[in-house]
Amino acid sequence: MKDVSESDLTNNIPLVALKEGESTKPVTVAGVEFGGNDFAIIAGPCTVESEEQIVEIAGAVKQRGAKMLRGGAFKPLSFPYRSDSFFELGEVGLEYLNVARKTHNIPVVTELMDIKYLDKLCENADMIQIGSRNMQNFSLLAEVGGSGFPVLLKRHFGCSLRDWLGAAEYLVHYGCKGVVLCERGITAPHTHVVTSRFIVDLQVVPAVKELSHLPIIVDPSHSTFRRNFVPHVALGACGVGADGIIIDVHPTPEKAAVDPLNALTYDAFETLVGKLNNVKKVI
Amino acid sequence: MKDVSESDLTNNIPLVALKEGESTKPVTVAGVEFGGNDFAIIAGPCTVESEEQIVEIAGAVKQRGAKMLRGGAFKPLSFPYRSDSFFELGEVGLEYLNVARKTHNIPVVTELMDIKYLDKLCENADMIQIGSRNMQNFSLLAEVGGSGFPVLLKRHFGCSLRDWLGAAEYLVHYGCKGVVLCERGITAPHTHVVTSRFIVDLQVVPAVKELSHLPIIVDPSHSTFRRNFVPHVALGACGVGADGIIIDVHPTPEKAAVDPLNALTYDAFETLVGKLNNVKKVI
Amino acid sequence: MKDVSESDLTNNIPLVALKEGESTKPVTVAGVEFGGNDFAIIAGPCTVESEEQIVEIAGAVKQRGAKMLRGGAFKPLSFPYRSDSFFELGEVGLEYLNVARKTHNIPVVTELMDIKYLDKLCENADMIQIGSRNMQNFSLLAEVGGSGFPVLLKRHFGCSLRDWLGAAEYLVHYGCKGVVLCERGITAPHTHVVTSRFIVDLQVVPAVKELSHLPIIVDPSHSTFRRNFVPHVALGACGVGADGIIIDVHPTPEKAAVDPLNALTYDAFETLVGKLNNVKKVI
Amino acid sequence: MKDVSESDLTNNIPLVALKEGESTKPVTVAGVEFGGNDFAIIAGPCTVESEEQIVEIAGAVKQRGAKMLRGGAFKPLSFPYRSDSFFELGEVGLEYLNVARKTHNIPVVTELMDIKYLDKLCENADMIQIGSRNMQNFSLLAEVGGSGFPVLLKRHFGCSLRDWLGAAEYLVHYGCKGVVLCERGITAPHTHVVTSRFIVDLQVVPAVKELSHLPIIVDPSHSTFRRNFVPHVALGACGVGADGIIIDVHPTPEKAAVDPLNALTYDAFETLVGKLNNVKKVI
Repeated sequence: MKDVSESDLTNNIPLVALKEGESTKPVTVAGVEFGGNDFAIIAGPCTVESEEQIVEIAGAVKQRGAKMLRGGAFKPLSFPYRSDSFFELGEVGLEYLNVARKTHNIPVVTELMDIKYLDKLCENADMIQIGSRNMQNFSLLAEVGGSGFPVLLKRHFGCSLRDWLGAAEYLVHYGCKGVVLCERGITAPHTHVVTSRFIVDLQVVPAVKELSHLPIIVDPSHSTFRRNFVPHVALGACGVGADGIIIDVHPTPEKAAVDPLNALTYDAFETLVGKLNNVKKVI
Repeated sequence: MKDVSESDLTNNIPLVALKEGESTKPVTVAGVEFGGNDFAIIAGPCTVESEEQIVEIAGAVKQRGAKMLRGGAFKPLSFPYRSDSFFELGEVGLEYLNVARKTHNIPVVTELMDIKYLDKLCENADMIQIGSRNMQNFSLLAEVGGSGFPVLLKRHFGCSLRDWLGAAEYLVHYGCKGVVLCERGITAPHTHVVTSRFIVDLQVVPAVKELSHLPIIVDPSHSTFRRNFVPHVALGACGVGADGIIIDVHPTPEKAAVDPLNALTYDAFETLVGKLNNVKKVI
Repeated sequence: MKDVSESDLTNNIPLVALKEGESTKPVTVAGVEFGGNDFAIIAGPCTVESEEQIVEIAGAVKQRGAKMLRGGAFKPLSFPYRSDSFFELGEVGLEYLNVARKTHNIPVVTELMDIKYLDKLCENADMIQIGSRNMQNFSLLAEVGGSGFPVLLKRHFGCSLRDWLGAAEYLVHYGCKGVVLCERGITAPHTHVVTSRFIVDLQVVPAVKELSHLPIIVDPSHSTFRRNFVPHVALGACGVGADGIIIDVHPTPEKAAVDPLNALTYDAFETLVGKLNNVKKVI
Repeated sequence: MKDVSESDLTNNIPLVALKEGESTKPVTVAGVEFGGNDFAIIAGPCTVESEEQIVEIAGAVKQRGAKMLRGGAFKPLSFPYRSDSFFELGEVGLEYLNVARKTHNIPVVTELMDIKYLDKLCENADMIQIGSRNMQNFSLLAEVGGSGFPVLLKRHFGCSLRDWLGAAEYLVHYGCKGVVLCERGITAPHTHVVTSRFIVDLQVVPAVKELSHLPIIVDPSHSTFRRNFVPHVALGACGVGADGIIIDVHPTPEKAAVDPLNALTYDAFETLVGKLNNVKKVI
């Protein structure tokens, strides 16, 4: 049985497929351009922990070169139990993001898991993140697409490029005005001894550029889950031609409420931004 | 970095984990027992195509040994475009299932993708199927769990057993009274030349039996996507100790609206049921 | 880029491909038929530990239904260091196998890793096992094939069916008179939490039957690496239509020199053989 | 069952494991340094096609920045049949490599598949490549290691980092004086629609740097099998911190005897070398 060929695929994704002679079409969200000349850097904590925390981090990452703030108000968990050290603020987290946004004049992207918080999110942020686990939640894609709001669409760790572009096509078909793809690691057999939980698929960046006009960024934090790997993978993402990164930064990473193993300190982030801008310049 | 150990896992799934001395706890849905002495056989078309079609098939599969009817009113598709030959009936499909159910006195399981159809589904069917792509749609799991309705929980083709049992824990935590797991194929690197799209993971059956008290059945049709493999994999599932199967059956498989490559004819189904019952008896 | 289609594949494997109207061609090795009416059962220890051990086990497994004896004189290890508890007897192990073979009149299969032991192996055993790691050691395949000796060809845990049949074609092309395939587990992303190291690919059995006339057996011991899974997977292998199994049996499994986690006791083996023969009868 | 932890691993690889306070130890082969300040660039055709071809390419790639010449005299093939357009020169190919080496004063690396050609290879080249398929051919590793000759050890596409470092330990244990690792793509489930046959695992570069003192380079040609991806992946490899690349270059790529889909032209190679040197400088 043959796999689906490229032409079969592009026939199924008329809105996001690259046409003859085209290249990446930039998407601009609240002044931040993805897929243009800049390398778009999104930074912030994994999770919004308090108003003070998110406001402070917003200022710190903006000053060091971030163009957009990340931070989760809703967090998908593999098990239904929250603990003292692993929680989510929910709606109030969205409000704190908005305070940080206004205080430091920096746009915000944050995850939506349930359609009932769509309006609230749109009032408090600039871009909706669809997480890995909901990449093929087609009801959510249809309603989010219908809102017209810009979307950062993460790839499911078990899905092919074909499925990912299919999900993007849903968003645009239902009305989404700006879709940016985000590679965040895949499961591969080779991951399971002495690396991290996922392997980042950097090769998917040129693959996307060959098939689609959508910009694509990389998440080196949640793909590798290992602080030491993050700067290397971020620089690799820039090298392969990604349009930006989204990265966990925390003033005291080891005390982060969620995912303390992958966040960079302010200093490490600042050093990385310098190198990223240099690499972007020379390629 | 070490992977999560078994004890770490079972601590996270107190409701579905096997306790010392326990074994599979049977789940009974409208008189059909999963995990008891019988081998539960669910059969029917991939998709409800018309009232006549589903009523006819319901009678035909019941007569040949099926204990429950399957049939999709809602169909998740990788791309947002329906064609003449690939469609879904939606709510009216649920009503047709109910007609078939009453005409032939056979319980029905059917997929739910959007919470807004929950009540309608519960009025017309006996068991909710959560499909592969929504296995980690936690909002859907919470609301479906809260309904108390029995659930057939398919495994995502890219997810580990750990993630799958975590999803089951969500359902039970929110109130689900009867969860049955369904293996439906995983993506593996080895699938990609000259077998089918997925590989069925039959080894997961004894793995589930070691970790959880939930019954587990196998879908040989959507895992293999190849009619010739279906009876072999169904018999293999019985051999490894699965509690049942869910299988596509169609009077004229090559004319099935969806997935014409995997459905069995009535005759092939009848032959298979005979063999399954014999294998179940001798092991 | 399209994958290789079935016709592309079968053009590359003229000697092992199934021709129109054919089915599995039985291979007989020292009176043991693979691919005929019987379900061929090979049993024995992972490793030859001493003359007494292998002679005793040979008698015990033959009495309980094994048709051929397994036992490693050469053992491939991931690291170059042997320990007191993990060793190999090498050439003298081959001689002990021969003693067991003659004492109990049971044929022997054992692994060859280096061509320099080919003659010695052929004097002392009846069938050469090519292990997973040497499946694509083309020099070894060419020389072993040239000997005309029967071969049990294990699948590499990271290789597709296409590559496996290519390796079988090498053997036959160079003169091998009887090739039997052996599935022994694949690495898949889903293996890496709370199952075993590999997943057995039982679906490959009907896939082989569709493409090749070679018999195929399954190794439930080294694929699952977990004693509790072994009988289930063995029965599943019989259910999907495999032509036999090769299985680790040890009088005191927990004291086995190599792989103590997967061997069955004599009693467990005897019970399993009874069930296997029953399943074979009814399908 | 837990996977092997990092400390379990490093105990098994005392010779190649990174010790406290160490970092990559440079390996120098015929004046080319791997793991030092330079980014080592190896280039040449997939296969040695004629004396004229290899001599010409050697000069062309050296002039454009390559430090070492690649070119296969022996080619592993999935099937035993050669065609007019897919062949190998064998021993005479080694001699042609030597002519090119002397003519242009450029060191040579070439693959060894059979121990019987070891001496001949050592007379005509500077470094032995162990290919993906022979990564766990332990007899070959032992004998090649015993020769003391430097080795470029490619990773098997289905093997974990643990297995790869185990193979490197074999080489050093048996006497190899200089091992350089080479990532050349892994099979992953996500590869199988509309990308290439393999996915390059760039994340393995920082993983190696954390566990071992061995230098590591990347093969962007055989991992991606797609000319358009090659420069992107090469730059990504430089970004993540690899110590070099090995790359297919051909004067008329579409006419290459083997793998015509991935070789770069001289011009494309020259442009890439310029960018690589710039990226190396800024990170």
